[in-house]
Amino acid sequence: MLDFRDRFVVDDPNLLYLDGNSLGRMPKAAAERVRQVTEEQWGSRLVRGWGEGWLDLPRRVGDKIGQMIGAEPGEVLVADSTSVNLYKLFFAALSARPERRRIVTDAANFPSDQYLLQGLRLSFPDLEILRVGQETEVTSLEDLRAALEDSVALLTLSHVGFRTSQLFDIAAVTAMAHEVGAWVLWDLSHSAGILPVELGAANADLAVGCGYKYLNGGPGAPAYLYVRRDLQEQLVSPIWGWFGQHRPFDFALDYTPATGIDRFMAGTPPILSLAALEPGVDLILEAGIDAIRAKSVQITSRLIHLADRELAPFGFDVASPRDPGLRGGHVTLTHPAAWPITQALVKEANLIPDFRPPNGLRLGFSPLYNTLEEVDEAVRRIREVVKSRAHEKYPTHRASVT
Amino acid sequence: MLDFRDRFVVDDPNLLYLDGNSLGRMPKAAAERVRQVTEEQWGSRLVRGWGEGWLDLPRRVGDKIGQMIGAEPGEVLVADSTSVNLYKLFFAALSARPERRRIVTDAANFPSDQYLLQGLRLSFPDLEILRVGQETEVTSLEDLRAALEDSVALLTLSHVGFRTSQLFDIAAVTAMAHEVGAWVLWDLSHSAGILPVELGAANADLAVGCGYKYLNGGPGAPAYLYVRRDLQEQLVSPIWGWFGQHRPFDFALDYTPATGIDRFMAGTPPILSLAALEPGVDLILEAGIDAIRAKSVQITSRLIHLADRELAPFGFDVASPRDPGLRGGHVTLTHPAAWPITQALVKEANLIPDFRPPNGLRLGFSPLYNTLEEVDEAVRRIREVVKSRAHEKYPTHRASVT
Repeated sequence: MLDFRDRFVVDDPNLLYLDGNSLGRMPKAAAERVRQVTEEQWGSRLVRGWGEGWLDLPRRVGDKIGQMIGAEPGEVLVADSTSVNLYKLFFAALSARPERRRIVTDAANFPSDQYLLQGLRLSFPDLEILRVGQETEVTSLEDLRAALEDSVALLTLSHVGFRTSQLFDIAAVTAMAHEVGAWVLWDLSHSAGILPVELGAANADLAVGCGYKYLNGGPGAPAYLYVRRDLQEQLVSPIWGWFGQHRPFDFALDYTPATGIDRFMAGTPPILSLAALEPGVDLILEAGIDAIRAKSVQITSRLIHLADRELAPFGFDVASPRDPGLRGGHVTLTHPAAWPITQALVKEANLIPDFRPPNGLRLGFSPLYNTLEEVDEAVRRIREVVKSRAHEKYPTHRASVT
Repeated sequence: MLDFRDRFVVDDPNLLYLDGNSLGRMPKAAAERVRQVTEEQWGSRLVRGWGEGWLDLPRRVGDKIGQMIGAEPGEVLVADSTSVNLYKLFFAALSARPERRRIVTDAANFPSDQYLLQGLRLSFPDLEILRVGQETEVTSLEDLRAALEDSVALLTLSHVGFRTSQLFDIAAVTAMAHEVGAWVLWDLSHSAGILPVELGAANADLAVGCGYKYLNGGPGAPAYLYVRRDLQEQLVSPIWGWFGQHRPFDFALDYTPATGIDRFMAGTPPILSLAALEPGVDLILEAGIDAIRAKSVQITSRLIHLADRELAPFGFDVASPRDPGLRGGHVTLTHPAAWPITQALVKEANLIPDFRPPNGLRLGFSPLYNTLEEVDEAVRRIREVVKSRAHEKYPTHRASVT
């Protein structure tokens, strides 16, 4: 059984950390890498660091992520945040084909993806956004198919839904969109690093993803974007920053986009955060995505089995697909008291889950450091909290974090 | 005399580091802070770190920078890169006043600022960009004044020019623009942290700046943006990311911008790089900007004095203003062989300057760690290189870095 737990910092072995799909644990190599980048590079090499590796980092780490998501070298770039990357690619896709003015997504897609689409109306006033399905439910392929027609520029979906854990078939959905000439932008934030992603084999068009979840890149790690090679020269980022310029250090006054994936860069990348991402990516490549997925399926299947037996009697439902082929790396249980239960788990049971309104208890397992034994123990602790009514003393509504 | 040199890592005392306006030296406290954020926070507190300080960092560090640039609490935010922040504010300023469709800048402004303006035409096809002056020369206020009329939405300038070191009078230029109803966006990248910036007193509208130069925030440190409080509710960022959403952790499907400066956030901020920025900002506040400026003026005045005496006979000219009141913290010397001289200085004289095409040798001094003695020594080494013709064996044209 895959076991990379000792490659991560685990200072409290009793903590059940089931939120690696929100912020992955810290690889030991990441702490060492950050020390190196500060003390040896910034501290000692100073500005020379740019010529000694920093300038290459966005593409170098991008290509490593590319190996994990079925992309060719030169198709993936680490840059900015997922939100900014979504903006760049949404905008570029709409600019490239002005005769298509509709974007289709589903209500289960992550809010930032929804918001960014809405904001595009500032630049594309005639943009229509069609939102299929319900936010807390699995989206049907039939509903998506019905929304696709010739005016659709882009279909955009999360490969794995952040609430339900619904897993789309990239190849099938991409083919369906291509039938009407629409491109597809995949948000891989909840899938890359936990299951196989085959963008190339699916002839996928565009993708973005996040560095701080299953990639274990650290809080707010830079994100990445993928643009299929033959689309790169057709697309232009709207954010014409100097790092996306052809030969930026010539300091020319007029913008000429760089060739290839570099044109999707904007400003100077945050090197400490970017360097910290690489060791987490390396660990996934070392472990192998198939082994990770195999263990992940074992974990989530066992969790659902135990939830049916041990937790359903206490009011829990399984909101994630039961077919592992349709499910990502986390499982969401629903319970009317999910928020008080979350608080009790954190404060009294040394278990960190994630709460997703209105009633979701989201349990994420990262096969690199979570174990099958932790599944059993998590179910035991959740059951114990609810059985003992430990949660009943906690607020039933969450104060909004602003 | 101000001396904070021992608060920085200086592992080679013989190195003349005159490029702190490209990448500032590493504060000792930054290395310690990064260790803390990785090992104690990410490694141990994991996702709980967001509630234990990370969420507040963009505003907390922003407010500290605000103290340095004459802003009120809640007017400055650390976020993204300078390029992305320029994009957000340029776009917001144009959206807010559709009847004004001209932006004025000068040719001496940084290329990224130029490029971002050019890219705005994708969203504002009728945008006119008026570029005043010459890229390697000081821009005249008369030329700027002549360009200002009622159709101008925005005047945007670098407070200190990255080539010449020209220092604009923020209050005078802002007043001049306000006379025709134009707003002004100041790029403070080469001024904040090295000289007093009084945005509030000037009733300045918008500003951005960079974290990695005089703020000593580390390679690619996140940037900041300033929006005068009464403008905040009038302006909307085009990048509707979830961190700019009102109550992001409610995960609502529709975007409602946060109140105040938070609405200018986009995605999840890179915490390691953001935390590393704070100690550098603290050092500037501790030293006091007036003391920093006093020493900076001494340094650059002495440099110009010595350049006239020791370097002019070897073909150097001073391209920066001679009046210290019109000059920032760096001095650019021009020489027909500036590029080979730069190479010889780095490789044979242990002196790191910056080369700016076509013929600029840019010497940046950061008063926190550079000394007056280093001025004399720098002039001596530059003179020695040219006198001995050490530079003549180096390529005369720089290979383009892409």
